[in-house]
Amino acid sequence: MTEPRVRRREAAVMALREDAIEEYERYHRDVWPDVLAAISAAGIRNYSIFRLGTLLFSYREYEGDDYEGDLAAIDDDPASRRWAALMRELQQSVEPARDGSWLPIDEVFHLD
Amino acid sequence: MTEPRVRRREAAVMALREDAIEEYERYHRDVWPDVLAAISAAGIRNYSIFRLGTLLFSYREYEGDDYEGDLAAIDDDPASRRWAALMRELQQSVEPARDGSWLPIDEVFHLD
Repeated sequence: MTEPRVRRREAAVMALREDAIEEYERYHRDVWPDVLAAISAAGIRNYSIFRLGTLLFSYREYEGDDYEGDLAAIDDDPASRRWAALMRELQQSVEPARDGSWLPIDEVFHLD
Repeated sequence: MTEPRVRRREAAVMALREDAIEEYERYHRDVWPDVLAAISAAGIRNYSIFRLGTLLFSYREYEGDDYEGDLAAIDDDPASRRWAALMRELQQSVEPARDGSWLPIDEVFHLD
């Protein structure tokens, strides 16, 4: 079932292993084309990841009609799965309980 | 001196006092129109602030020709000065050394 077109702004935090910063940045200077294609095909736009020390912050926008389905398609993409597995080796959760997933954070303000 | 039009993506982190979260969010549900006008007049677009516990993360884009001049104009705006002074009462620096200024973080990845 599709809903009317929406535009979501999403932010999340993650942490890097102290010794993995350089490798993480090297990967992100040359992200695999198949991974980028899967993200774009899922309706994700204006996606950025920022780093402060070992703290990562991601910002992205979603334009599409089927949020859950579009994100599930990324999870099902073989290149995206391999990429995610590699990144998990470099990351550590901001909350240890969270087993390596990006931790969403709430928007408190927006100005277009 | 003006430079060719640029579009910068900027992110920064800040922290809130444990006891100031509710007040900070209340202020940001109804930001003063003069403050919003000054931000927009400075060429800042798509500006969001996100919160995780006491951690604040801001994301914004700059479209303009005179970055330093445009940001200085916000600093010179009376309403924006009053707003900033009020917010400083609610915030605590992520790095104590930083005396209450937002701490910029580096972009490591972007996909349009």
